[in-house]
Amino acid sequence: MSTEELEMEDRSTDALSFEHITLGQKVLFGAGKAADFLVDEVRRKKAERVMVIAGGRELGIARQVTSHIDVHVWHDEVVMHVPVEVAERARVTAREKKVDLLVCVGGGSTVGLAKAVALTEKLPVVAVPTTYAGSEATNVWGLTKDERKTTGVDDAVLPQTVIYDPELTLSLPVDLSVASGLNALAHCVDSLWAPKADPINAALAVEGIRALSAGLPAIVQNPQDMRGREMTLYGAYLSAVAFASAGSGIHHKICHTLGGTFDLPHAQTHAVVLPYVLAFNAPHAPEAERRMAAAFSADTALEGLNRLRDEVNAPRRLSDYGFHPEDAAEAAQIALEIIPPSNPRSVTLKNLTDLLLAVTCGDDPASVPSDN
Amino acid sequence: MSTEELEMEDRSTDALSFEHITLGQKVLFGAGKAADFLVDEVRRKKAERVMVIAGGRELGIARQVTSHIDVHVWHDEVVMHVPVEVAERARVTAREKKVDLLVCVGGGSTVGLAKAVALTEKLPVVAVPTTYAGSEATNVWGLTKDERKTTGVDDAVLPQTVIYDPELTLSLPVDLSVASGLNALAHCVDSLWAPKADPINAALAVEGIRALSAGLPAIVQNPQDMRGREMTLYGAYLSAVAFASAGSGIHHKICHTLGGTFDLPHAQTHAVVLPYVLAFNAPHAPEAERRMAAAFSADTALEGLNRLRDEVNAPRRLSDYGFHPEDAAEAAQIALEIIPPSNPRSVTLKNLTDLLLAVTCGDDPASVPSDN
Repeated sequence: MSTEELEMEDRSTDALSFEHITLGQKVLFGAGKAADFLVDEVRRKKAERVMVIAGGRELGIARQVTSHIDVHVWHDEVVMHVPVEVAERARVTAREKKVDLLVCVGGGSTVGLAKAVALTEKLPVVAVPTTYAGSEATNVWGLTKDERKTTGVDDAVLPQTVIYDPELTLSLPVDLSVASGLNALAHCVDSLWAPKADPINAALAVEGIRALSAGLPAIVQNPQDMRGREMTLYGAYLSAVAFASAGSGIHHKICHTLGGTFDLPHAQTHAVVLPYVLAFNAPHAPEAERRMAAAFSADTALEGLNRLRDEVNAPRRLSDYGFHPEDAAEAAQIALEIIPPSNPRSVTLKNLTDLLLAVTCGDDPASVPSDN
Repeated sequence: MSTEELEMEDRSTDALSFEHITLGQKVLFGAGKAADFLVDEVRRKKAERVMVIAGGRELGIARQVTSHIDVHVWHDEVVMHVPVEVAERARVTAREKKVDLLVCVGGGSTVGLAKAVALTEKLPVVAVPTTYAGSEATNVWGLTKDERKTTGVDDAVLPQTVIYDPELTLSLPVDLSVASGLNALAHCVDSLWAPKADPINAALAVEGIRALSAGLPAIVQNPQDMRGREMTLYGAYLSAVAFASAGSGIHHKICHTLGGTFDLPHAQTHAVVLPYVLAFNAPHAPEAERRMAAAFSADTALEGLNRLRDEVNAPRRLSDYGFHPEDAAEAAQIALEIIPPSNPRSVTLKNLTDLLLAVTCGDDPASVPSDN
């Protein structure tokens, strides 16, 4: 019996029931095509007063990308986590200059600022991402006030068009590319058992795993390899679509706890934790396991992920980032409160503490106990 | 080397470049849940004057589905191919009754009428399909005047919400289910080499093949089998999404010619022609071939499709519908004009005539010559 037959058998045990929201968006993808795509989009939208949002290292890229259009306003104040006063200044500029289209060129913070302006000014956004953050494919906005982050969901902030040009990511350093790409991979994997997992977002998540597991090693081998950049950028897009639709699963809840309460670095935490969550859940999610294994071109999903971690030299243990074994029980206690009850394996203080101990020390993920 | 590795290798020869438009839509899916889904949607949309469009055999189903909502207007004049005068009467009713939401319950013609009203009245549509036609997932409208069909694309006609309830399809006769399901399968297969084929619509098309090839035999075995109905309805939705995005490929152009010029029946023609087009193109589209084979759980895509044809007792030859071998060259000549130049195998009058001769007589599809 082939993998696919098993898969169908497996599915046949449950009724198919879901709610899936597809966000409408145009995606333009092509290496070296960003400037041409953009001029076409601006024309199609009949925009006359474009505000370009780009800051820091992305300013040069933004000048290239916008070289064929008339830019009415440049806005280069881009700050991580979108502080409200930064957003307010950008909104005022957009209003005063009667801007009719926002074009953002950059990573998550740049897209975030464009979304913050779109939220109140109801302006369309064309996003030109230069990283693998994925925010451009979601309707989620975030603002920070007095170091507290507020997030929300509003279709008004979803970029109407996304222009993906892998050439723009060539200068993204390898370590950042890997961290960001593994973060995207975590979105895909976690989507498969997240609270709003459904067959549609699963198909996109699996396609994302396929793309990222091909793209990331190619980037590590040669950061200028366009194929690796293409596959990673494409995979990052899929990961964002799947994750935005499926919601946060156990992996993101654990990482949220480790980042929020224990101040561990975001991307590295995701990269370290993922194989342990995979080993923890996979035996209880046989269809997800089979589909991931196929997407990784491996006999098991964990084998595929481990091979990828070797190829990209992924970080291995939380102790490298200041997390101690004695923190494991506390972290488990906090995470336990927010882990979705729909997780395919039931989570207890004991098995979650064991998982976190293994993550801390970088034990073989396969050693994560498979019973409760 | 595994299938997946080959697939990635194959992909690595071409640059990734595409334009993909994702249509925003909410999909609610669940057996026996239509009435509950609908009351929630009407509430969420704060609709106060709902017009329900349903006719003929679907009236009974529509009364069930709408049993929990206040219906302001019933409209039961539904005619195939949406004649303009029928559309105009529905529009007048919607205007006079100050309707604020259209709910259509039925197959392609019913959805088509709702779209025609939405086109001019700019009213939102909630579609409750009872067949596998798939029109509810596209922004394409069609109207017929003096026996001439006009079609167009407008986002205003895309139903905002689709409610899929497999229970509503239980009464769809087996032969109609198979014909309609194979038509959906043809959408998926043809999407893989259609002019606007891209990795995103390919992933959805492949998932559609997987679902339809599991669902259809289950319906034939037992038309009351909910699992078969679920998988087929889900697959039909994916086929519509993939096809609307990828456009018409060679298969649809051939069938369009056979239907338009030779008046052959729509669904049967699709079912008969598909394996021949598959045999014709597959050697020239190795990635599509591998992905289809995996989705069919077969060694080759053709083997998978042939098995499915056996299981559902699909029609076998065009001669059964009045098409004669001496028509083949003329049909080939007409189809040749409209077959997309991007087809993976170059199409000539000779090889297309050979294909049509084989289709006419029901020869083994594998006998379609593989050279040009």
